[in-house]
Amino acid sequence: MALNKKPVKGMKDVMPEEMAIRDYVIGLIKKTYKAYGFTPIETPCVENIENLTNKQGGENEKLIFKILKRGDKLNLSEAQKEADVVDSGLRYDLTVPLARYYSNHANDLPTPFKALQMGNVWRADQPQRGRFRQFMQCDIDILGEASNLAEIELILATTKLLGKLDFKDFNIRINDRRMLKAMASYAGFAEDSFDTVFIILDKMDKIGIEGVKETLIAEGFAQDAVMKYMQLFEELAKTKDGIKYLSEKLGDCLPEECRKNLEEIRDNVNASKSADFTLLFDPTLVRGMSYYTGTIFEVELKEFNSSCGGGGRYDQMIGKFTGNQTPACGFSIGFERIITILLENGFRIPQEGSRVAFLVEKGLSTEQLGEVLKQAEQLRKEGNTVLMARMNKNKKFQKEQLSKEGYSEYKEFYVNSLQ
Amino acid sequence: MALNKKPVKGMKDVMPEEMAIRDYVIGLIKKTYKAYGFTPIETPCVENIENLTNKQGGENEKLIFKILKRGDKLNLSEAQKEADVVDSGLRYDLTVPLARYYSNHANDLPTPFKALQMGNVWRADQPQRGRFRQFMQCDIDILGEASNLAEIELILATTKLLGKLDFKDFNIRINDRRMLKAMASYAGFAEDSFDTVFIILDKMDKIGIEGVKETLIAEGFAQDAVMKYMQLFEELAKTKDGIKYLSEKLGDCLPEECRKNLEEIRDNVNASKSADFTLLFDPTLVRGMSYYTGTIFEVELKEFNSSCGGGGRYDQMIGKFTGNQTPACGFSIGFERIITILLENGFRIPQEGSRVAFLVEKGLSTEQLGEVLKQAEQLRKEGNTVLMARMNKNKKFQKEQLSKEGYSEYKEFYVNSLQ
Repeated sequence: MALNKKPVKGMKDVMPEEMAIRDYVIGLIKKTYKAYGFTPIETPCVENIENLTNKQGGENEKLIFKILKRGDKLNLSEAQKEADVVDSGLRYDLTVPLARYYSNHANDLPTPFKALQMGNVWRADQPQRGRFRQFMQCDIDILGEASNLAEIELILATTKLLGKLDFKDFNIRINDRRMLKAMASYAGFAEDSFDTVFIILDKMDKIGIEGVKETLIAEGFAQDAVMKYMQLFEELAKTKDGIKYLSEKLGDCLPEECRKNLEEIRDNVNASKSADFTLLFDPTLVRGMSYYTGTIFEVELKEFNSSCGGGGRYDQMIGKFTGNQTPACGFSIGFERIITILLENGFRIPQEGSRVAFLVEKGLSTEQLGEVLKQAEQLRKEGNTVLMARMNKNKKFQKEQLSKEGYSEYKEFYVNSLQ
Repeated sequence: MALNKKPVKGMKDVMPEEMAIRDYVIGLIKKTYKAYGFTPIETPCVENIENLTNKQGGENEKLIFKILKRGDKLNLSEAQKEADVVDSGLRYDLTVPLARYYSNHANDLPTPFKALQMGNVWRADQPQRGRFRQFMQCDIDILGEASNLAEIELILATTKLLGKLDFKDFNIRINDRRMLKAMASYAGFAEDSFDTVFIILDKMDKIGIEGVKETLIAEGFAQDAVMKYMQLFEELAKTKDGIKYLSEKLGDCLPEECRKNLEEIRDNVNASKSADFTLLFDPTLVRGMSYYTGTIFEVELKEFNSSCGGGGRYDQMIGKFTGNQTPACGFSIGFERIITILLENGFRIPQEGSRVAFLVEKGLSTEQLGEVLKQAEQLRKEGNTVLMARMNKNKKFQKEQLSKEGYSEYKEFYVNSLQ
C-alpha cells in the first residue's frame, strides 16, 4: 500500500508536547474572552470561491488552496482557466468569513455583537522556518459599537490573556489612521500619495529615520514635504506626550475626534489594566491592511522580534458586504507565535491532580483486574490522571519512558499479591 | 462587492447557542479522556492525495474534496483527468491521518500510544437534514496494546463521558469479527462468501430475522446453511448468556481466544463501570469497515434511532502502512449526533459564575468610565462574565435582548450618579 508518511508540504503534525500547550492556551483564551462577553462562533473552513477572490484579501488572494468542482460540474476537457474548475477554497483569514456570517445572521445576533473565532486558516505561502501553510488564527471582533469602548475592551481582554500566559513588560503600540493622514497632510503630501508614503513609513523600525527620509526622496517626493514630515518624527522622539505634541503642532489638520479617541483609550486602559504592559502611542505604526479606518494597534513582546498580533477599527468593511453601515473593531493575536515562544521558553502548564501509572502484571484474573480498574476510577474521580499499562519485563526502562510522559507516581499490581 | 451570504453547500455556520454546547462538550471530552491517559494530537486537515485514495477508505474515497495544484505544477491545458490537476485533498476521517502520523513519528511516541483526536473531516455527500459536508470527528485509539485492556479502557472512558453528558440507560453492543466468522463457518457458508453474508446479516435490525433468511436464500445460498444459521439466531433470542451458548454450540469453529475475549471485556466493564448503561453481546453486530479483526462495538442511545459511535480492533491496518505489525483498537463517538440530541433536549451547560451586563450611559468622563471598568474587572476576577454595553434609549428592550444572551443581572451607570 503506497503511503506518504510526511504531512503535505508546509503543514505539520502536532506532537503531544506542543498539543498540550495548544490545548491549554486555547482553553485559557476561551475562558478569558468569554468573561468579557465574547461569544464563540464558527464558520466552515471552506468558502465559496467568489467570497475569497473579491479583492478584500489583498496579497492573500494569491495564496488560496482552491477546491476542485465535483461530479458533472467538472468539465476538465473544456476548461480554459482555474476559475472553470474550482467552486470553493480554504479560507485564508477569519475576517472575510466573519463579514459573511454577520451579513447572513445579523437579525439573529445581538447588537453590539462580540464574536470570538478560533480556527485554522490556510495560505500557500513559501514554507519557512516556523511558518506553516495551515495555522490557527484567534480573532475577537466587536460589531456595532461605534465608541472606543470597543478598543478599550479589546485591549484590556487581550492584555489580560497575555498576562495569564506569564508575558510581562510587553508593549501595545497604538495609532490612528486619521493621525497618519493628518501628519502626511500637514507635511504637504498629496492625499493620493498617502498609501505610498505609509508603506515607506512602515519600514521605520528596519531602516530608521534616515532610511525613510532617503527612500521618500528617492521615490520623488518634494524635499520640503519630506523634511517637514521627518522633523515631526525627530521632535516626537524627544517628546513625552506625543498625542499632545501632535494635536498642538498639526492644528486643523488633525480632527479633534482623533486626539480625543487616542487619549481616552490610553487613559482608560492605563486606569483599568490588570497586566504588566505599556500602552505606547506610536505615530509610525501603519498596519498593512487598507480596510482600517481609525484606531490601529499591535502587540510587541520582548521575546519575539516582530509583531505578535494586532488589529484596529474597520468601520467601512461590513457595510460593503451587507449594505448596512456597521462600525467594527477587532484584535487578532498571533496564536502560532505565542505557542512558539511558550515552547521555546519551556512553559509549564499548571498541573491539575497527579499523573499516576498503574503497571499491571500479565495474567490477572477478571476479579483482580476489576479491583485494579476500580482503584483507577477512584483516583480519576478525585481529579488525577491514571494510565493503565501492562507491566514490561524491563520495568526500569518502562518507568523512564513513562516519566517522559509526565507520570511521576507508579503503582504495581502482581498476580500473587492481589486477592 | 459580490458576496455570497450563505455558507458553501452542505456546510454550516455555527450559531452562538450551538457553539456554547460544542465548546462545553469538547472541553468535557478532553478532560475525561485525558484522565485515562489519552494524549491529544493533531494532523493537518489536508492530506496528500495518494494517502486518501489507496482503497483503505472504501466509499468515502468517492467523496473527497480535492485541492487544485498551484503555480507551475498546474497545467490545465494538457490535463486529461482529475489526478493530473490535484495534489491533495481534505481528509474524510481521522484514521488514515492517525496511521500516517504513527508511521511518521513512532520512534518519538510511547508504547502503547493512546491518542485522542478531535477534528473536522469533509465528505462531499448529498446534503441531508442534520448531515453536513464538514463535521467533527472524535476518536480515541490505543496503538501497541494487544490485550483487551485496550477494549476495556476504551469502553470505560467513552461510557463515563456519555454519563457526564446525562445520557442514561444506553447500550454498548459488542461482538467479535471472529464470532461472526465462527457462526458462518458452523452454518456451512464458504469462507469467501462471508462478506456477503455479513452485509445481509447487518440488516437484521431493519428487516428482521425472516427478512435476513429470505435475502440469503434469494442470494443463492444453500437452504441448509441458511436454516442452520438462522436457527442460531432464533435460539440466541431465547438465551440469557449468548457467549456461553455459542461457545458450547459452535465447538471447534469458535477459537477459545474469542470466547475469553468477549467474557473478559463484559465482566471487567460490568465490574468497574461508572455510568448507567448495559453492555450487550450482539451476535448480529457487523460494523461496516473491513479492516476490523477482532472485537467490535457500537453505542446505542435511546434518544437516537441509530448508532451514535462505535469502533473496534484493527490489528492489521497500521502494519500495512508502516511495515511493523502494531495491534490497534479505537472508539469513535458520533460527536455531531450527540450535539444534535443535546440541542433537541435543551441541554443546559453547568453555569460557572454569574452573567452580568453593565449598562453605561453615554458621556461618562474618563475617570467615571475607569471606575466602571475597574468594577467589571473585579467581578471577572471572581469568575463572573461581565458584558460592557452602551445604555440604549429603550432600556427595557435592551434588557430583553441581553436576557436572551443569558445575562440575568444588570448594573446601570449614569453620568450624574457616578463620582
